[in-house]
Amino acid sequence: MLPTPKKFFVTAGSSEGKSNLTAFDNALLKGRIGNLNLMRVSSILPPGVQYCPDMEIPPGSLVPTAYGFIISDVPGELIAAAVGVGFSKDTFGVIMEFSGKCSKADAEAKIENMLIEAFETRGMELVGTKIAATEHRVEKIGCALAAVPLWY
Amino acid sequence: MLPTPKKFFVTAGSSEGKSNLTAFDNALLKGRIGNLNLMRVSSILPPGVQYCPDMEIPPGSLVPTAYGFIISDVPGELIAAAVGVGFSKDTFGVIMEFSGKCSKADAEAKIENMLIEAFETRGMELVGTKIAATEHRVEKIGCALAAVPLWY
Amino acid sequence: MLPTPKKFFVTAGSSEGKSNLTAFDNALLKGRIGNLNLMRVSSILPPGVQYCPDMEIPPGSLVPTAYGFIISDVPGELIAAAVGVGFSKDTFGVIMEFSGKCSKADAEAKIENMLIEAFETRGMELVGTKIAATEHRVEKIGCALAAVPLWY
Repeated sequence: MLPTPKKFFVTAGSSEGKSNLTAFDNALLKGRIGNLNLMRVSSILPPGVQYCPDMEIPPGSLVPTAYGFIISDVPGELIAAAVGVGFSKDTFGVIMEFSGKCSKADAEAKIENMLIEAFETRGMELVGTKIAATEHRVEKIGCALAAVPLWY
Repeated sequence: MLPTPKKFFVTAGSSEGKSNLTAFDNALLKGRIGNLNLMRVSSILPPGVQYCPDMEIPPGSLVPTAYGFIISDVPGELIAAAVGVGFSKDTFGVIMEFSGKCSKADAEAKIENMLIEAFETRGMELVGTKIAATEHRVEKIGCALAAVPLWY
Repeated sequence: MLPTPKKFFVTAGSSEGKSNLTAFDNALLKGRIGNLNLMRVSSILPPGVQYCPDMEIPPGSLVPTAYGFIISDVPGELIAAAVGVGFSKDTFGVIMEFSGKCSKADAEAKIENMLIEAFETRGMELVGTKIAATEHRVEKIGCALAAVPLWY
């Protein structure tokens, strides 16, 4: 089997770029995860993982990551992305991601509601959250991205 | 290298949610795969894998999974998702996924045609299929999802 | 942790299909990666990887892959996909992918610009590139796909 991650952090970043993908790439760099091979996952915090905000991951590593992003080429548009980790008392947690044409505060509020719903549905108690969010006013081509990298 | 999966099952589920992502999350839970970290793959059944419909996978595990889904916020709309595994006589199989604004029966029929085409293209004999499908009439925000988790 | 890939190649292929997903499947087969389980990554060439254009990967393997594709059902439309690997002198490289309604030459030009931008942003010198691209004139349902599979 693939090894289950042991550590995580949360991050968010926004940037302009000359193209859609380089805007995305630049937003990843702002979030300090631009030199990794992100493998997108949906989206559970494994039991017992540790929060390691200052973790250094070698470039090119395969990093299971839950993330949300939005790219816009509409000058003046406000875009935002947020991720949230919801913690249970003694088992796994749930990760939610959101992106849209809204403010950072709106994105954070949506994440909080999504985490509440995810725990209600599972009949689990939500004992805490950790959220990262970003907003960006598009100049030419912009990207807002938020991510929860999982690591070992 | 990453270890090649040894087991699989097929599943499908539909649900409402208060947001797009929680509708997706709830559909995963209905399909009994909501507490996993799905890593999306395209979409081959490795040679020699076993069908294990009652497999329990620990929460938070990284699970290579082929899946299709559709989310709709149009009340009254009928949405469906299906996956199908096509088996060869003695080597790998092919997985197809489909989702759309249609009935479960339509989604299943499309999957069957896709598997027939995939085997014809490869010059392989299709000796059997296993299909999972679901349909859902949207109330507010609904998701239909079908998946083939691969495991060890 | 997941093992960091050691080898790579670049490929591209286009095809018709009877459905969106089988067009995609057929394009993967044209690119000689149709019998693999591609796990999409974003998109760094790990340090020290080797270029292995004739690599054979067993069917059903989990293969970290950066790829771009476009599917169109507009008869007569020209579609293209390209990937490019940018090499640094002595550390990791960057992978860019692009797809759109354009010619192969246009897609290649965009990839080159994206690689230049990605290296400029990182303050790294771009010492070489390797690009694969394809274009396709749609008959009924067509797909153009370009990929950088990473392997061990």
